[in-house]
Amino acid sequence: MKVDGKDIRPIWYNQDSGTVQVIDQRFLPHEFIVEDLTTTDDVIEAIKDMYVRGAPLIGATGAFGVYVTLVQANNKGNDDEYLINECKRLKDARPTAMNLFWGVDRVMKTALSQASYAKRVEAALNEALEVVEEEAQNCRKIGEYGLSIVREISEKKNGKPVNILTHCNAGWLACIEYGTATAPIYTAFDNSIDVHVWVDETRPLNQGSRLTAWELGKHGVNHTVITDNAGGHLMQHGMVDLVIVGTDRTTRAGDVANKIGTYLKALAAKDNHIPFYVALPSSTFDWDITDGIADIPIEERDPDEIRFVQGDCNGEIKNVLVPPKDSPAANHAFDVTPARLVTGFITERGVCKATENDIMSLFPDKIKSDL
Amino acid sequence: MKVDGKDIRPIWYNQDSGTVQVIDQRFLPHEFIVEDLTTTDDVIEAIKDMYVRGAPLIGATGAFGVYVTLVQANNKGNDDEYLINECKRLKDARPTAMNLFWGVDRVMKTALSQASYAKRVEAALNEALEVVEEEAQNCRKIGEYGLSIVREISEKKNGKPVNILTHCNAGWLACIEYGTATAPIYTAFDNSIDVHVWVDETRPLNQGSRLTAWELGKHGVNHTVITDNAGGHLMQHGMVDLVIVGTDRTTRAGDVANKIGTYLKALAAKDNHIPFYVALPSSTFDWDITDGIADIPIEERDPDEIRFVQGDCNGEIKNVLVPPKDSPAANHAFDVTPARLVTGFITERGVCKATENDIMSLFPDKIKSDL
Repeated sequence: MKVDGKDIRPIWYNQDSGTVQVIDQRFLPHEFIVEDLTTTDDVIEAIKDMYVRGAPLIGATGAFGVYVTLVQANNKGNDDEYLINECKRLKDARPTAMNLFWGVDRVMKTALSQASYAKRVEAALNEALEVVEEEAQNCRKIGEYGLSIVREISEKKNGKPVNILTHCNAGWLACIEYGTATAPIYTAFDNSIDVHVWVDETRPLNQGSRLTAWELGKHGVNHTVITDNAGGHLMQHGMVDLVIVGTDRTTRAGDVANKIGTYLKALAAKDNHIPFYVALPSSTFDWDITDGIADIPIEERDPDEIRFVQGDCNGEIKNVLVPPKDSPAANHAFDVTPARLVTGFITERGVCKATENDIMSLFPDKIKSDL
Repeated sequence: MKVDGKDIRPIWYNQDSGTVQVIDQRFLPHEFIVEDLTTTDDVIEAIKDMYVRGAPLIGATGAFGVYVTLVQANNKGNDDEYLINECKRLKDARPTAMNLFWGVDRVMKTALSQASYAKRVEAALNEALEVVEEEAQNCRKIGEYGLSIVREISEKKNGKPVNILTHCNAGWLACIEYGTATAPIYTAFDNSIDVHVWVDETRPLNQGSRLTAWELGKHGVNHTVITDNAGGHLMQHGMVDLVIVGTDRTTRAGDVANKIGTYLKALAAKDNHIPFYVALPSSTFDWDITDGIADIPIEERDPDEIRFVQGDCNGEIKNVLVPPKDSPAANHAFDVTPARLVTGFITERGVCKATENDIMSLFPDKIKSDL
């Protein structure tokens, strides 16, 4: 996607330097910083401390992480046990992220199938690059399938703006291109459909107000930042036509783990008869589980992410403490939206209802584990 | 209530100086500032800019505002039209606040019934002081009636902590003593019932993390600050036993206007079979309307309240900008929770269900306007 006229992705392989590079998203929208990932620990830190975030991008970073690990391994590069252990460390960086396990395992398997160290490095890089291109293609297709949903609403409204609410950032910054939740929005916009996006700020880390608003603004899409509290009121008053969110892990029965607060928006959408779609590549499905509330572990993160808010203060990035310094905080990072609240999934293979039958009809090749 | 061992209220008449004083709540919990209100414009600014906030306190401030207006009026003090116009200005300071209209009108009527200027001033002060004492008494009674709800849950849990979620600040800072939503909590705590409070931070102005957490901490009540997004997840996992919130205006049929985001918590409570109570003095009921979504005007406030977050940065209070500087924001301050989602009301006359019949059985004297 374009930033100030320049094509950019959130992760890439720099052929000149032979390194993997990422946008350090922690300082957006106020500072644009690029980081090299040259060790396994760099990759783990980038995932854990959220230089990179968003299901598909975490998957791509995990995939590149195996390559980085192999480059760093040198004489241990042929030691299967070493590689498997390092890959386990990569997968432990974020417990809720389906794509991370998927990306790491896929590249690890490819590398392990090669005998020589040089072949392993080469195969890992190629496989990681393929993961990235596949994710970009998946997002493009999600955009195309989602377009028809947006277009139908636009036609019903006689071309008046389609108001779409989204939570967190499931944009290109979270993916490779287009995004997942934003793919139908960008595709509709590029097809001259009038869209306006309500951007949930998405506490505690404000990925909505910091990242989604920045992305949409750079692409020229009309948007308005709102608090996470506001969506229900807007829906009650006919100011939301459609909700589209991403997901970090979705069960084969359609339960959706996504950024904390998604469940509340799904309840409000249901209460106000507003379609609630989840956009995802198939790599985000966990084919092995059905009950999301029971079986998806929810990451608890540092309470200081709630207590301190980061922003720009006269040109400098500062953190301010909001609650009393001795008040504890709890930081559950995700919640699970039961399938009964989801209108449908927008995937790279098309749109389906949030039932195990419909999902498995679209993905009949995904019986149990994909690995 | 006590702050560092000293009895304090959020508004009081200082007999020594003959002035009305308030805590400027904008800088809590990091700075404790007291302001004099000596002109009508001071009072309007204190209400509009939220030095004071919370339905009962806004009502008390409006009541004192009539007294302040009369003191300032001097030779215009016997001019009925002048007083009525100034009172209208006071009532316009916040459009959603039922108690403001009620407090101002009550003291204005008392003042207008007196012939001489001196009598008007005296009557206004006495009436305002009476409003304040009545509100304190109401909150005490709300605490007593709410206690039985908390005690019942505590007994069912064999004394294990009762987890109560609250949104915004409906504590003593919003009232005079005890608070409304917090009155059952403080009363339970003072009766040695083990309680733990989940404090919604309450974006955009963070009255939960700034004020409720501060109040509870000062009183020694266990609490944990959470994002507004978290409540649904906690409810899904059995970590919330009870929700209690306040309200800025409630219709005779039981629709509840309260801080934006309340509706989302009510939906989650319903979905998880968790009791959802609204605590209020009768002055917060609007006896003239039934349909809250259609008939309660929702205040839209400055978008910069969303864009900038205030907090402590190394001992100084700073504001940081979170979204891109050119991204617009919309700041709807309240939402309406339909009566169907409310388990019951805790009032100074007892607990009732959220139906017009039950409410009017408790308040048979409140047929139509209270004025």
